[in-house]
Amino acid sequence: MYLNSIAHYLPSIVIDNDYFLDKNGLTDEWIFTRTGIKTRRKAEPDENANTMAIEATKRVIELNEYPIEEVDLIIGGTYTPYDTVGTMAHVVQEEFAVSDVRTVSISSACSSLINAIEIVEGYFATGKAEKALVIVSEHNTGYSVDTDEFAGHLWGDGSAALFVSKDRVSENDLEFLEITTQGLANVGKGTTGVGLQPLNNGIKMRYGKDVFIHACNYMTQITKDILKSNDFSINDLDMLIPHQANVRILNNVVEQLGIEPTRVISNVERLGNTGCVSTAIGLSENLDKLKKGMLVCLTVFGGGYSSGAALLRV
Amino acid sequence: MYLNSIAHYLPSIVIDNDYFLDKNGLTDEWIFTRTGIKTRRKAEPDENANTMAIEATKRVIELNEYPIEEVDLIIGGTYTPYDTVGTMAHVVQEEFAVSDVRTVSISSACSSLINAIEIVEGYFATGKAEKALVIVSEHNTGYSVDTDEFAGHLWGDGSAALFVSKDRVSENDLEFLEITTQGLANVGKGTTGVGLQPLNNGIKMRYGKDVFIHACNYMTQITKDILKSNDFSINDLDMLIPHQANVRILNNVVEQLGIEPTRVISNVERLGNTGCVSTAIGLSENLDKLKKGMLVCLTVFGGGYSSGAALLRV
Repeated sequence: MYLNSIAHYLPSIVIDNDYFLDKNGLTDEWIFTRTGIKTRRKAEPDENANTMAIEATKRVIELNEYPIEEVDLIIGGTYTPYDTVGTMAHVVQEEFAVSDVRTVSISSACSSLINAIEIVEGYFATGKAEKALVIVSEHNTGYSVDTDEFAGHLWGDGSAALFVSKDRVSENDLEFLEITTQGLANVGKGTTGVGLQPLNNGIKMRYGKDVFIHACNYMTQITKDILKSNDFSINDLDMLIPHQANVRILNNVVEQLGIEPTRVISNVERLGNTGCVSTAIGLSENLDKLKKGMLVCLTVFGGGYSSGAALLRV
Repeated sequence: MYLNSIAHYLPSIVIDNDYFLDKNGLTDEWIFTRTGIKTRRKAEPDENANTMAIEATKRVIELNEYPIEEVDLIIGGTYTPYDTVGTMAHVVQEEFAVSDVRTVSISSACSSLINAIEIVEGYFATGKAEKALVIVSEHNTGYSVDTDEFAGHLWGDGSAALFVSKDRVSENDLEFLEITTQGLANVGKGTTGVGLQPLNNGIKMRYGKDVFIHACNYMTQITKDILKSNDFSINDLDMLIPHQANVRILNNVVEQLGIEPTRVISNVERLGNTGCVSTAIGLSENLDKLKKGMLVCLTVFGGGYSSGAALLRV
């Protein structure tokens, strides 16, 4: 299973921390100290998770070695949907006129990217698909509440798109050595730690500390597990891209793993928490650092809870 | 791949057509003539897609030969989510304290049940799962608009849960001979025919006629296709359970297929359009009609658009 290409899209509106002072009463210093976030992107009024998914797809098409028409599977991932009937995967199918394709959108919150790729792996295993497009897109600012002092300032918008194939297409492909996910709803505050109830005022962070603790521990654990099951140690890892929820979670994971911080990707200061898109943006923004043979790990934790990891060989 | 057990849940509030006269101005006769719907169920104020999913799961646990703890995969399906972070699959994992499980929720609108089962098939093929719980639940009345003369009266609430295993567990299992799905967003009004935009007044039916035409034709076609690819004819089919959107769609599919109406399950008159739950309720309500060796086909069409079918041998 191979990653053929990846691209991302960020809306152009930049929201800095000062924006929140008269919204939820938090200062730039307070926000930065506790979250590591300085700015985040915000979708334009006529943008949403679906339009941003289309933008990322346009970009990845430019990079990919085969045309989108060859795709036989489209999986969308988001917890901030624009339309749960005309889903993200459907809108991308329509926009690019892809026929003879299976189409579905999913959510496991911030871990949706890895769940989506794991679902692709299943379709490859049944022989029902050989080339897939995975799009992830979050319109967090559509659902977040600016006046919420617990979570209003955390979120950013963005999208990414990835072509994934069963067989190697090019020398430049990254090979998936392993994909794994885990449902953790039975742990801690599980389904109530953080939530997005469309009929009940959008995103809420009810138990931030519980989310923090479990994000730190489960991202650390699943990274150790996926390395171990592939006979690698942390020293073999050239690039770790953890979910970008909060710089303090990132620092904790880095410390627990004992990995050099220079090997760890972080975009949370610029982009805030971009949900299930964050690790995809992390990879897409750092493709120029990759060299043949490098080992890359994407590690995620999502509200609900879930964890997931993908180990890739450049 | 086997269906071990299935159960459903319907909320107790019954809404008849007269309810809509002073809401969207439609009479009982108008509604019944055009849709075949007389009543539909409505969730209580403290119910939602997640609570209903739990209720259906309680019921299927009673019927199943193995305990829910043996499940290693939980897939939820809904386009009317209560929480897109603490998703339906997560809430069920938490409620029944299932550990060591993969957990994700999906939407391809009214075809989500078949997409969910197809995703299970993929997990079975990779060897990452052997026993799965699929739950589907729709809280249509949470998102529908009673005053909407195009679609306010169409929807009903309900849920269903299914245990599915890779290997046969019992003589009573139904065998999946084939599962198939198709993304059809490139057809007709695709992503705009019907929609649910949580931030934009919920469910809307913008192009009912377009949905009607494609539902008729694609449900007919995919039923023919799945029978043909398994070397059956329509005469071999003992029970057809089409998606329950509208009795006129059902009648059209029955006519196009040339199947005896007595072999076709319909619950739309009592329950309205229960979204991706409708065929699961159809099967669950008619288990007593099944005899060893019978051939059963579930056929769905979803907004977005998508189609799907599952062929089962009792």
